[in-house]
Amino acid sequence: MTTQVIVLNGGSSSGKSGIARCLQAVLPDPWLTLGTDTLVDALPASLTSSDSGIAFADDGGVSVGPGFRVVEAAWIEGVAAMARAGARVVVDEVFLGGASSQERWRKALVGLGVLWVGVRCDAEVAAGREVARGDRTAGMAASQAELVHRGVSYDLEVDSTHAEAVECARVIAARVR
Amino acid sequence: MTTQVIVLNGGSSSGKSGIARCLQAVLPDPWLTLGTDTLVDALPASLTSSDSGIAFADDGGVSVGPGFRVVEAAWIEGVAAMARAGARVVVDEVFLGGASSQERWRKALVGLGVLWVGVRCDAEVAAGREVARGDRTAGMAASQAELVHRGVSYDLEVDSTHAEAVECARVIAARVR
Amino acid sequence: MTTQVIVLNGGSSSGKSGIARCLQAVLPDPWLTLGTDTLVDALPASLTSSDSGIAFADDGGVSVGPGFRVVEAAWIEGVAAMARAGARVVVDEVFLGGASSQERWRKALVGLGVLWVGVRCDAEVAAGREVARGDRTAGMAASQAELVHRGVSYDLEVDSTHAEAVECARVIAARVR
Amino acid sequence: MTTQVIVLNGGSSSGKSGIARCLQAVLPDPWLTLGTDTLVDALPASLTSSDSGIAFADDGGVSVGPGFRVVEAAWIEGVAAMARAGARVVVDEVFLGGASSQERWRKALVGLGVLWVGVRCDAEVAAGREVARGDRTAGMAASQAELVHRGVSYDLEVDSTHAEAVECARVIAARVR
Repeated sequence: MTTQVIVLNGGSSSGKSGIARCLQAVLPDPWLTLGTDTLVDALPASLTSSDSGIAFADDGGVSVGPGFRVVEAAWIEGVAAMARAGARVVVDEVFLGGASSQERWRKALVGLGVLWVGVRCDAEVAAGREVARGDRTAGMAASQAELVHRGVSYDLEVDSTHAEAVECARVIAARVR
Repeated sequence: MTTQVIVLNGGSSSGKSGIARCLQAVLPDPWLTLGTDTLVDALPASLTSSDSGIAFADDGGVSVGPGFRVVEAAWIEGVAAMARAGARVVVDEVFLGGASSQERWRKALVGLGVLWVGVRCDAEVAAGREVARGDRTAGMAASQAELVHRGVSYDLEVDSTHAEAVECARVIAARVR
Repeated sequence: MTTQVIVLNGGSSSGKSGIARCLQAVLPDPWLTLGTDTLVDALPASLTSSDSGIAFADDGGVSVGPGFRVVEAAWIEGVAAMARAGARVVVDEVFLGGASSQERWRKALVGLGVLWVGVRCDAEVAAGREVARGDRTAGMAASQAELVHRGVSYDLEVDSTHAEAVECARVIAARVR
Repeated sequence: MTTQVIVLNGGSSSGKSGIARCLQAVLPDPWLTLGTDTLVDALPASLTSSDSGIAFADDGGVSVGPGFRVVEAAWIEGVAAMARAGARVVVDEVFLGGASSQERWRKALVGLGVLWVGVRCDAEVAAGREVARGDRTAGMAASQAELVHRGVSYDLEVDSTHAEAVECARVIAARVR
């Protein structure tokens, strides 16, 4: 089946966004990149500063409430509809709920050609890159590095600990049908 | 019919994004804001630097080719699907094609409660705000100020020339059902 | 005396940065714009997350400790040195300490041609613009609107409540020698 | 002599900014980071869109005219003055003129404790990171990788091709007196 959606799942500062941009550059067809950051940017302040929404703690922890889940469900349906309408989409995601997060996406993407990709990065290395980029709360990388992969199944995994984003992208691109 | 989508259409630097954020703040329910800028950010470089994609000329002119139209159509379907799945969405748009742009959205949003809002701003004032914000090509505001409203029909229009974003948002919010 | 430095002082969301960019556009000579935001971007994380540095409270309050004061003093000396070396500089500042902040700048700028400009904006209007821009903590605009002008003396004042940034810039530019 | 200024020189996408942020995190004292990007952000539009200023070509080439040189000279004097006034400063620079660029900084920093650091990165790897970050013109990394080091002398060099930013920062920090 033709690949219509590439789901990249990995912790903060694991290199997903860089890999997504390299995928857009190396794949011959045009691919959109959408993800958790797109959704968070679209949220009202009421859902980024309350227990009902998504909350970023000072220690890097991220918690998600029922208000966020409602809009997230609609967002996922919408991204799936884009793919059904013909767009190729790289989904740049953080499965905070591990297997249950994947299940939400799997149901919405049913019938579409999906490539599930795990983006691994050693927690300590990711934490160092978090300092280097300077725009994320300290601690997010370390707290998410293992968490987001719990119970998730992949078609392939890449590890950015010792590989450049463009190398990871080439490995993934070779699996796109 | 309950309002599920608010479409804000206006030229560059007419104040749409500020009005959208104020709408998110004044409306009691959570609303997402998505728009042209979200789509452009999601594009691969191949569609932001070729005749097939969207091209930003040095004089502020913006032209759109067939490759952009293909992904835009899927994007519009996806945003409509989000609303059908229960999200309330503010669409922050620039109808470069005037009435034909509106027609694309109208078809996709059929059956949904839509509030069509024109965001006007005097061309000279918008050009001044373009200089003040400093992140847009000079000339975009002036070239789009009239163009984007040609043949477009609205439920209401606001004019940001002499009104603050939050005032425009309150006028719009009063029409949300 | 030739104007070598234009100091714009006003509260958050009073429109200083937009006025600064418009000044750069309307003045015939090249002017640099530097300010509080430049300094804050240059700080180490240790000075943006401790009592010794600059701290941004959830209610929009901003407090400044001794560690910040030390680097700020050196920063001010450096900006003054740029002007002495021939650069024309727009200083985009927030005098959190009112008259004492002005005194720090006045000492460093001694001997230079300085135009002191107060940028006023009605607190409620500034608070609305804070919501519209969406990238500042709610409450900063209101808490700073009066505070920053306490005991400060100006060569001229502009009020952005009902005037566009470019209009304010033209009024200021007319006073540049 | 106590180190008061750390000059990091390297091509675009060689990793200087990440190393600078890591230096700020690992060094015990507070250090400011200022650099080419700070100056470019401070420029009026007239100096970022003319032959007299700094021009960014579509192929990644960067050229610099006499108007830029004038403000740059004052900028360098100002940064030196900050260090003389007691600030510790990491200078994040791109020596487009190689040895002649270094000479401009050397003269201004005379009498100060300076650590000159070359930041190397394999041109092909830097070009890949340029794609991954997505906010720089394609070609800048490759065109600058060798150019900026021509005739420049260093106290130490780091190579980010196979080393993380935080590792490079630790090597540099060990040389700070």
